[in-house]
Formats: sequence, structure tokens, C-alpha cells
Amino acid sequence: MWRDLAAVGRDRSSGGYRRFAWTAADGDCRSWFREQAEARGLAVETDRNGNQWAWLGDPAAGDAVVTGSHLDSVPDGGAFDGPLGVVSAFAALDELRSRGVRFGRPLAVVNFGDEEGARFGLACVGSRLSAGLLTREQAHRLTDADGVTLPRAMEAAGHDPDAIGADPERLAGIGAFVELHIEQGRALDLTGDPVGVASAVWPHGRWRFDFHGEANHAGTTRLADRRDPMLPYAETVLAARREALRAGAVATFGKVAVDPGGVNAVPSLVRGWLDSRAAARDALDDVVGAVERAARAAADAHGVRLEVARESFTPETRFDHALRDRLATLLGGDRGPAPVLGTGAGHDAGILAASVPTAMLFVRNPTGVSHSPAEHAAEDDCAAGVLALADALEGLARA
Amino acid sequence: MWRDLAAVGRDRSSGGYRRFAWTAADGDCRSWFREQAEARGLAVETDRNGNQWAWLGDPAAGDAVVTGSHLDSVPDGGAFDGPLGVVSAFAALDELRSRGVRFGRPLAVVNFGDEEGARFGLACVGSRLSAGLLTREQAHRLTDADGVTLPRAMEAAGHDPDAIGADPERLAGIGAFVELHIEQGRALDLTGDPVGVASAVWPHGRWRFDFHGEANHAGTTRLADRRDPMLPYAETVLAARREALRAGAVATFGKVAVDPGGVNAVPSLVRGWLDSRAAARDALDDVVGAVERAARAAADAHGVRLEVARESFTPETRFDHALRDRLATLLGGDRGPAPVLGTGAGHDAGILAASVPTAMLFVRNPTGVSHSPAEHAAEDDCAAGVLALADALEGLARA
Repeated sequence: MWRDLAAVGRDRSSGGYRRFAWTAADGDCRSWFREQAEARGLAVETDRNGNQWAWLGDPAAGDAVVTGSHLDSVPDGGAFDGPLGVVSAFAALDELRSRGVRFGRPLAVVNFGDEEGARFGLACVGSRLSAGLLTREQAHRLTDADGVTLPRAMEAAGHDPDAIGADPERLAGIGAFVELHIEQGRALDLTGDPVGVASAVWPHGRWRFDFHGEANHAGTTRLADRRDPMLPYAETVLAARREALRAGAVATFGKVAVDPGGVNAVPSLVRGWLDSRAAARDALDDVVGAVERAARAAADAHGVRLEVARESFTPETRFDHALRDRLATLLGGDRGPAPVLGTGAGHDAGILAASVPTAMLFVRNPTGVSHSPAEHAAEDDCAAGVLALADALEGLARA
Repeated sequence: MWRDLAAVGRDRSSGGYRRFAWTAADGDCRSWFREQAEARGLAVETDRNGNQWAWLGDPAAGDAVVTGSHLDSVPDGGAFDGPLGVVSAFAALDELRSRGVRFGRPLAVVNFGDEEGARFGLACVGSRLSAGLLTREQAHRLTDADGVTLPRAMEAAGHDPDAIGADPERLAGIGAFVELHIEQGRALDLTGDPVGVASAVWPHGRWRFDFHGEANHAGTTRLADRRDPMLPYAETVLAARREALRAGAVATFGKVAVDPGGVNAVPSLVRGWLDSRAAARDALDDVVGAVERAARAAADAHGVRLEVARESFTPETRFDHALRDRLATLLGGDRGPAPVLGTGAGHDAGILAASVPTAMLFVRNPTGVSHSPAEHAAEDDCAAGVLALADALEGLARA
């Protein structure tokens, strides 16, 4: 099952995956999903927002137990982020069948569309649409780097873009959603556990720092006469690391744009983007506030004008407490509850958590590397993840 | 004369000039040059490398006195960098004629082609070719951002690209070359002089710093698990300023490229370019060595691999000492010699200095701003520049 999927959308030079929404690679992933579902006698449907569902039992019965994740990838992504949750869902179903478990509730495996947002710039489009957190009008305005709109891309892939929109009836029919995902940090490696349970998605946001200086000749302008925005930018990068370290948060400058960007020109503008996340809102506000103060002091010292704009913000998402504790106890067995950990990453489960009792399982990632071809989970840990998911589903859905 | 040229190649939105080699704007500048020359009864020719010459007297007589500069610009350049030297050359000739000066040597005004290198990435192409510092084969490999090669661009502008190459006979016929240029710093503003004489072009170069880290998820990767190349890059930017300040040199990071450059991704690669210049080779080596050591220490501290490559280097260019002192004495008059100053910028005069006795005059730039629409010289100072150039030419060429 895993082997069939491994070749889809893989870049030969980097070894990374390029499975972007509504592309041919995405279509191949969807075909694979259909084949796996049909081989297990599950009824496959694609919902109005392009999410794929494979049903065991009658969805109309309600109170369904759903598991799954996504098959699309970031540019040069790893093999596990997304697919591990879908593959494990099918494997857990196989395990439950071999155990002879009888289900008292309908059960489904789901493949959410466009989770990574690599093509249209917005993450979790499929689940956001279904949850009513993204309107059809907003979705119709999304455009990829080549100027192709989301509706045109959906249409080209054979999906009706006019059908998209909130899907409250479908969500109301779900009693519990469990998403298994490779961990994107090293918390489980440090505790020595193959599988853990998510507590919450950290509050997170991105802020744009525009440092406006004065373009000048790099060879002839005295240092004292410069208003060089690269200098306060550099001080801000270092302040972000310092403040995040102090607060136990994370802060990253991963993107920067320079005008005019000539080797022999003092820049007129350096624009840097801060991504920051913390376990609590207070800590995040504290980090971003301190970084902004440091940036402003550095800008003032260099005669540079600073503008800071918050481009996006997502408050903390707490997963269902009862479901979380039940799973932690179930999975921990004699050893006491399985580890419960927060995460800095967004997921479809985080989107659904507002509408549906939702939980997440994480599988150990020994290096913590994520969104990279070097992302990896050991085979034994993947197997432990499948058993944990099977245990969770059995506990939820047994007749 | 100045007014006719002012509209050519000016960008309406920025107010800056976009006069790039062998474009329509460049052609308009060349037409303007021809008209100015012909209006003064000068014989116009374009040499094999696309440099324009306007002759008074017979070039074959040898020992010519030549003055001029260039008409092309950097992107969004100012009105003075280049054109001031050509306009002042024609105006100085008018001044000498009104004084009734009789010339004992041939005199020429020159417009060197492609001085700024804005289109093909290499500065002073016209003078380099003539001086044999750039071969025809090397020049034929130059390509602009649209993939157009220099030969195709020359051809499209009606110039034979097969003719380009070293022009030793032409240079041998020049007894002295004087280039007038707007100052690109504030030295004259600080001494209070409208015009100064150049001593030397500082040794200068550019170095590429490649910081190789590890791409990772900006939300989930613990700070301790990161190898984030943005951090040592930031420390290197600050080290460059610190070391340049200490050594009385200049150092600039004006260009940076980030891979993959996503807001939510720790970068795998940050590539920054250092431009550094100093009055003496020792001081420059000292600055660049110290910056490299600081970069290496910062890279090591963050688990980042550093590669440093010197992309270009030009040793100090000294202008002709006898000519320099003669001009400084001539221009200073009763007040003692005019100020003699070094410069961090390259010029056609610097290229020719190896083959021809060469001098430069600088006109005061009160803000020091250069390569920007805000570049400016006062009208009185421009007039003082014309008189100084006329005095210099009279001193050199009087019968």
C-alpha cells in the first residue's frame, strides 16, 4: 500500500514530494485512495469541497468515527507528513478486521484536500471550507503562482467549483475525528515514546517588518551618512531568537525581500517576515512585543523607519479534553497515560476541532525534521502508530 | 542642453533614470550626444566598442586631451551620475571658445558605453574592451536578465558586435583623459569645496557568503534542534558594519537570497553578498578577514556550514600623480591646492588609468546620495565644475 504511493509526485533531483492541490500528482494520490478504499469494500465519495471519504457502514446513521489526514505536500516535502495518517487509517481498519471487531457506529477514512496550501497560499482549504471558516467567495479569489484561480484548477481536475462551501450536515454526522500525523518536533524522541496524544495547537501568527532606509552607493557613502535597513533587520533576527529562547517559544525569519537588492547598493527597503508560536497567548504576545521593541530601537539607531503589520493570527486550538484523556489512557496501558503534547503546526484536525470532537495522535520523528525529504519515522514506530490508532478506533466504535 | 537630456529614459513613477546599454533610451542619449557635437562643429565617430567621440582637431595628430564620462544609468539612477561629466565637457568647450583659447593638441569629448553595467552585470564594458581588460570572447558571453546576449543587443542597436576588442592605437593617441563626475559621498561637503581632484579608486571587491543550514518547520522545530542559517547571516551583517567602522572602510550587505524562502520554514540556505572597499589593500584585507572570521564563528555556533567565495576584486587604481597635482594646483588658485580625495566607486577613468595619464574631478554632492533619484548637485557647483574643467583643459591643451 505504502509502496504504490511512494513514487507519486516525487522530484527525482531532490527526493522530495511535490504533490500540490488539483495537479496531476494530486490526482494520482486520489486514485490511489479510491483503489485502497475499494479493495477494502468501502464506499468512496468526494464531498463538495474535494475531500475524499471512504465509508464502512451507513454515513446517514450519524455519530460516525472518522480518521485520516491529507495526501498533498509542501514543495520538496517528506513522505510522511499527511500520507502516514491516511495509510495508517487503512492499516488500522485492516487490524480491526483481523481482530474481528464489530462496529456499532459508521466508520470513515478521509483524505482532506489542499491541507498544505502549497499552491494557493492558504492551508487546510478543504477542511476550512467544510467548517465554514472559508467562504466560497474567498476561495474563488485564491490564485496560484501562475495566475490560475482555485475554481479553474478544480474545474480542470474535474471538480465542480460552484459546489464548494460550508458542509454543516456532514460535520454534524461525525461523532469523533482522530488524525494520526508524524510528529514535527522531537518531543516523543526526548520522552522515548513511539506515540503521543495532542493537547492543543499553539497560538501562532506571522508579522511583516518593513524597514525603510535610503538607497545609496555601497562604495562611496560614508557609514555615518547611511540609513541602511539591513542593519536593524539583522538585529531583529537575533532579537527574535533571543526572545523566543527566553520565553520557551519559537520565532523564525524564513523570508526576506530587499529593494533594490544590488550587491553595490545600500538597500532602500528590507522586508522580513516573522513567524512565531508559543504554548500560550500571553507568551506569544510577550515574544512578539519584545521583538518589535528591539526592532524599533535598532531602526531608530540607524535612522530607519519601521512598519510592522500582523498578516495572520490563529489563537490556540484545544482538542476535545474528554477524547484526549480517553485516548491517552487507552494508549498508555499499564505504563500510565501516553504523553500529551502541544504542537506549533496547524492541521485539518485543528480546523475541525471547533465543530467536531477531535483528537490527534503523533508518531515519533527521531530527528524532528519536517517539511523536508529528510523527514522520517522508523518502521516500528509507524507500526506502533497503526496499533494505537486501531486501539483508539476500537475504543470509540466498538458495538 | 541639459534640458533636452533630462527627459530621456526617465521613469515616470520613480523619477529615476533607466538608461541601460543598447536600449532605446541609450539610443536617445547617443542621438543627443551627436546633436550636441555637431552643433559645435565637432566630428563624431563611434569606435569599435560603441564609445562615442566628438573631435576638435585631427585625432591622428596624437597626444589628444580627452574629457567626458557616460550617459547610461543604474536602475532608478539620478540625473547627474555620468551625464554631468558629458554635459560639463561640452560646456567647458563652449567656455574655452568664449575665452578665445587656441588649442595646440586635438581635443575630444567622449561618451563611454555601458559604464554602469546595469543590463549585462559588468561595469565599464566600453572602456574595458578598449583597454583590453575584457576580451571579445568574454564580452560575447555577457547576457541580460531576458537572456539577450551583448552581441545580439549591439546588433539590434545597429552596431557590429564582431568589431569589438582592444583598441591600443586609439588609447595611444590620448595624451591625457580628465573625467568630471558628481561626488558619490560627502567629502567635499565636509571640506566646503565645490570641486575636488581624485587621488585613487579604493581597492574593492565582492564576496559571497553561503550559509548552509537545514530546512525545517518553523512551528514545530525546537530552537535547540535548528540549524538556522539566517542567524549567522544576521551576525555577519552586524560584524561587517562593526569591522568597517573600526577600519575606516565601508562594507555593505545589499543583496540576500533565501532558500526555500517560506514564512513558515527555517531556511536551508541564506546567501549574502558583501561589498567592501577601503583606502588601502591592507585595510580591506583586514576588514574582510575579520568579517569572515566572525561569520565562521557564528556559523559554527549554529551548526551551519559556511562557504565564502570572492566573486570579484579590483586593486587600488592610482590616477596619474603629476596630472593630479597639476590640476589640484591649477584649480586651487590663491587658496592653495584643491582637495584631493579617494573614492570607493569604479569609473571609466579608473579603467583607462592603466593605459593613459588620467585624472578625475569631483563636483560637490551635498547629501552624498548616489545611484538614486535623490542624487543632486547645486547649479552653482555644476557651474564651478564646468569652469574647473575648462581651466584644466586650457592648462593641458593651450597652444
